[in-house]
Amino acid sequence: MVVVVEHNATEKDIEGIIKVLHDFGFDVHRSTGVNQTVLGAIGVKPDFDTRQVELLPGVAHVYRITEPYKLASRSFKSEKTVIDVGGVKIGGDAIVVMAGPCSVENEKQIFTIAEHVAKAGAKFLRGGAYKPRTSPYAFQGLGEEGLKLMRKAADAFGLKVITEAMDGTQLDLIEQYTDVIQIGARNMQNYNFLRELGKASRPIMLKRGLSATFEEWLMSAEYILSSGNKNVMLCERGIRTFETATRNTMDISAIPVIHAKSHLPVIADPSHGIGIRDKVIPMARAAVAAGADGIIVEVHNDPDHAKSDGAQSLFPNQFEELMKQIRLIAEAIGRKVA
Amino acid sequence: MVVVVEHNATEKDIEGIIKVLHDFGFDVHRSTGVNQTVLGAIGVKPDFDTRQVELLPGVAHVYRITEPYKLASRSFKSEKTVIDVGGVKIGGDAIVVMAGPCSVENEKQIFTIAEHVAKAGAKFLRGGAYKPRTSPYAFQGLGEEGLKLMRKAADAFGLKVITEAMDGTQLDLIEQYTDVIQIGARNMQNYNFLRELGKASRPIMLKRGLSATFEEWLMSAEYILSSGNKNVMLCERGIRTFETATRNTMDISAIPVIHAKSHLPVIADPSHGIGIRDKVIPMARAAVAAGADGIIVEVHNDPDHAKSDGAQSLFPNQFEELMKQIRLIAEAIGRKVA
Amino acid sequence: MVVVVEHNATEKDIEGIIKVLHDFGFDVHRSTGVNQTVLGAIGVKPDFDTRQVELLPGVAHVYRITEPYKLASRSFKSEKTVIDVGGVKIGGDAIVVMAGPCSVENEKQIFTIAEHVAKAGAKFLRGGAYKPRTSPYAFQGLGEEGLKLMRKAADAFGLKVITEAMDGTQLDLIEQYTDVIQIGARNMQNYNFLRELGKASRPIMLKRGLSATFEEWLMSAEYILSSGNKNVMLCERGIRTFETATRNTMDISAIPVIHAKSHLPVIADPSHGIGIRDKVIPMARAAVAAGADGIIVEVHNDPDHAKSDGAQSLFPNQFEELMKQIRLIAEAIGRKVA
Amino acid sequence: MVVVVEHNATEKDIEGIIKVLHDFGFDVHRSTGVNQTVLGAIGVKPDFDTRQVELLPGVAHVYRITEPYKLASRSFKSEKTVIDVGGVKIGGDAIVVMAGPCSVENEKQIFTIAEHVAKAGAKFLRGGAYKPRTSPYAFQGLGEEGLKLMRKAADAFGLKVITEAMDGTQLDLIEQYTDVIQIGARNMQNYNFLRELGKASRPIMLKRGLSATFEEWLMSAEYILSSGNKNVMLCERGIRTFETATRNTMDISAIPVIHAKSHLPVIADPSHGIGIRDKVIPMARAAVAAGADGIIVEVHNDPDHAKSDGAQSLFPNQFEELMKQIRLIAEAIGRKVA
Repeated sequence: MVVVVEHNATEKDIEGIIKVLHDFGFDVHRSTGVNQTVLGAIGVKPDFDTRQVELLPGVAHVYRITEPYKLASRSFKSEKTVIDVGGVKIGGDAIVVMAGPCSVENEKQIFTIAEHVAKAGAKFLRGGAYKPRTSPYAFQGLGEEGLKLMRKAADAFGLKVITEAMDGTQLDLIEQYTDVIQIGARNMQNYNFLRELGKASRPIMLKRGLSATFEEWLMSAEYILSSGNKNVMLCERGIRTFETATRNTMDISAIPVIHAKSHLPVIADPSHGIGIRDKVIPMARAAVAAGADGIIVEVHNDPDHAKSDGAQSLFPNQFEELMKQIRLIAEAIGRKVA
Repeated sequence: MVVVVEHNATEKDIEGIIKVLHDFGFDVHRSTGVNQTVLGAIGVKPDFDTRQVELLPGVAHVYRITEPYKLASRSFKSEKTVIDVGGVKIGGDAIVVMAGPCSVENEKQIFTIAEHVAKAGAKFLRGGAYKPRTSPYAFQGLGEEGLKLMRKAADAFGLKVITEAMDGTQLDLIEQYTDVIQIGARNMQNYNFLRELGKASRPIMLKRGLSATFEEWLMSAEYILSSGNKNVMLCERGIRTFETATRNTMDISAIPVIHAKSHLPVIADPSHGIGIRDKVIPMARAAVAAGADGIIVEVHNDPDHAKSDGAQSLFPNQFEELMKQIRLIAEAIGRKVA
Repeated sequence: MVVVVEHNATEKDIEGIIKVLHDFGFDVHRSTGVNQTVLGAIGVKPDFDTRQVELLPGVAHVYRITEPYKLASRSFKSEKTVIDVGGVKIGGDAIVVMAGPCSVENEKQIFTIAEHVAKAGAKFLRGGAYKPRTSPYAFQGLGEEGLKLMRKAADAFGLKVITEAMDGTQLDLIEQYTDVIQIGARNMQNYNFLRELGKASRPIMLKRGLSATFEEWLMSAEYILSSGNKNVMLCERGIRTFETATRNTMDISAIPVIHAKSHLPVIADPSHGIGIRDKVIPMARAAVAAGADGIIVEVHNDPDHAKSDGAQSLFPNQFEELMKQIRLIAEAIGRKVA
Repeated sequence: MVVVVEHNATEKDIEGIIKVLHDFGFDVHRSTGVNQTVLGAIGVKPDFDTRQVELLPGVAHVYRITEPYKLASRSFKSEKTVIDVGGVKIGGDAIVVMAGPCSVENEKQIFTIAEHVAKAGAKFLRGGAYKPRTSPYAFQGLGEEGLKLMRKAADAFGLKVITEAMDGTQLDLIEQYTDVIQIGARNMQNYNFLRELGKASRPIMLKRGLSATFEEWLMSAEYILSSGNKNVMLCERGIRTFETATRNTMDISAIPVIHAKSHLPVIADPSHGIGIRDKVIPMARAAVAAGADGIIVEVHNDPDHAKSDGAQSLFPNQFEELMKQIRLIAEAIGRKVA
């Protein structure tokens, strides 16, 4: 923590500040310039609330100098994390594609889609059995029946499963059926849940909150990591901006910026990122071009009658086109699609 | 739902759109102007995903014409909701003040503060026993011990208790000790939890999410109301904006706007709204001037050594000053402080 | 500027950083802790681009430690600025009310409104002759004819005039007719224009940009102040947020926060702040309660047929009600309405 | 415009609304459903302020049904605009690269950079002679001397020139030296200036405002187009979000979305978009992958000593790498770099 003293602070003010810092347990280094005094306060835990010092007489500004996350940072672990999900590696050279419907609706639907996406090159079947919906009156998912159907369909076509858990009470059940547990944007700061995920037996894909900063996102990953689960991947799914023409604004810059700050893999979700089917392909291309480790995308055999998110779900032939295009982009940057 | 047809749409396009709308179960009214055709589609449930229609050939725009919430709206219930908490009425003419520390720290602290805020005119003791913290390494609250201390201190000085629940597993326990259950901003869209709150035996104070719109906030209230708990009050606690000089930006306009849209009481939290002690009083005055039904404010006997949020906690004498000033403002607008 | 060195930086890295800082002309103070080295760099102009140092090997973070504005700051001038506009004092104890139509439309309209607002207690007639409009096809104002009518109407009823200038080419003309020059939100960072305003003979009311931070707003004031015009007042008129139910979100916290950072008077514009007539009065009350030095508000004799902004213009009787209410609020906080 | 009537509106209310709409000149079509009446109001100019109707008794919601821009829209002109700048075509199949320093500093600097970027494949030399700076105390550019140097350097190496104009008084001068006039983000809604640009003899590159929506951006283009200049290209340069780790957040989705809404070419500026040198290349790749018609990028021969924006300027060898990589991406999507 660095404490900048006001121009007109008295020596007594400065001594008062130093005393408080010592009382909090900091080592203090004082730099006195012609116009300004700066105090370096070193040695206390990262979550110290700097506002405690900001209010002292004579203090102009206070800056925290350490990142509040540790296990998620590149300075803690410099090599990139590669998560091995039954042989499918996420975070390595190959880009992993996860595809499927927003919601599992019935056996025929999930088998049709699973077969299609597997043939086109997806490695994971995505699909929701428990759906977080803004409206209490909307379709909330098939529950355990949906999990069973998804597992069956995935197994039939050699796919892994990724599905969302909405709270801790669902974990035991969901772990039986899924390979990766997805955590939704609105749960990114559900802290008790994050701790429970730290004890889960499956890797976690943590979606970015709608208005979360990179630091907050990594702090949420830190909750999971510090509770014992080292297999965390992050998913950029669009943030809220002033734009109303699109559902969200996909923050492609999250990909290179998080890769610089953290060793965790970054997956891109262009379906939620842009929210409308006909722009999903260019956004998927952009994500791969920027370095994403994977793409998760909504595909439906009959999007016009999907129970949720049909408007952002690709038709099967559009998904084939997406695979073709991102393979070309992957090659252009020296990677490949898994 | 209103569907605006593109200028150059063909008659075949228009018939196609009408057919799809019929298939979804809508009644369709067609208005054909010289330049433009508009279709009114009436009769389907409020959560219909309008993007399903936006993608049809010939569609220019689609507008939803009904608010997605019902039980929370003024058009459903025109008289304002008044919540009676053991004789303290929230939502009536009198403005209710809730005060206390961010976290319960020990018996002496909570009793000292309870005595002080009761004498100065608060009706509720606020305080956290379970703290949602950005960092997994920060102080997380005393848990049940904190609940017990708060109940004891409140009872000793004739106060009601308001405290936060972080998830459904805590509800049974917290209901034993508290009069009102507070739901934090980061849990505003934790949908399963909202449903459980609909079955709770206590009134709920639902804080606005950091980036939530009024509609989303009311939809979250709708979850609780539609699950059976009619005693919901809303709490404006500041939204996220680009400003970094303050912790949050308190949206005073939420008070008159929500009062127009909904019958639910609105409480203002200037401590979190502005985030720094010396601006809490003017923001509390503004909230009362704008029509808030209550004020919840952090007060600590020794803010400089508080375990959390000390920087935004008032000193006891500042809280007395706040009470004095909001009484004058309340009178100026023809209300009083309870 | 404070430069925080990375944990694993070598002594050579640190020496390299110090050399670069010296080359830029800084005095450097080094604090070496057990885990971390911090460099205080003092003595160079406030606009130094700190990113120049962020990129050096071994640098973890760089913090600017001085505010970039000077003339606008409280530390430069601790007593509040009071602007005397022909006897009407802005920034003193009395709250000044400015009222009138969005646009001057014709002689009858402006005289009717001027008479009304003067009788109700306004000190300034507001009104636009040059209108910045989002659409090139919208009504753009009466131009010089509008200025003449406004001056005549104001003089007839003992009012001062405030009107907007859109660029430097209009200044000579507008200065002949107005007492205060208003600068719109979209021009807040039109830097050449700000410099010209520094040479204008009239006080300036500088509206906050739609997404401007407090610092950016004060930097724009600094442009005017540093070019020679010391009579600058600031106007909070609502910022852009995610909310779509209101036109803007009025940031009431700007009033106490700017008053702490700067000596310049702060005016509140609840008409643009909330954008809809029926919420203007509670927002005006809140602004006065929070300490605003003045209120600027749109009033129209026939809002339903106003050429612009009719929806946020008060009816004459609503303006009388507003005056009555803010007088009560002003008294409650120990001020009065001028 | 579509007017949705409240559930409980009386027939008298509805007739009142229809009368007002007729008075404003609208044709009204009425659709009466079981629960709800909807009025289609057709025929008045696009800038009608819908709030005028929102306030009428019985009105629940009002929706504008036409885009407020016309000349900028795809429905007005379906084929993409290609701007021919002395043989370099912008908006066609080939992607045009513009490169150079933030500010022109001296002859040696601009010649060194011009030679380098020309060899590496840029078609335009970019550089600022008039710099809009947040601080009045910062370097403001060399003015006409800068323009002359840039022209000379560009001519020496077969490049076109693009440079920024800050207001209308500079246009005559700048037109003598430049091929394309750049308008900065902070001037996007400087309406009088936009009109003057409509009369300029050079194509315009209009940068997106920091918080502008797509519609506002296209409305600003409409100002230029409707004043007579058809050669407008748009430039995405990053928007403001809550993120503080990067200077701006580059909105890659602007590229496909604007291409769908408008026929105007879209250029991407990854230097301002991300604001730090080491992430410029992945963001440039993403922009090309998403369909950008050009890239404008800051390059400096000695970024560490640049007078402005050194931190986001590429080293010459990084620019060569960028060119190599975007050529591969362009090929992957069936385009090429001009």
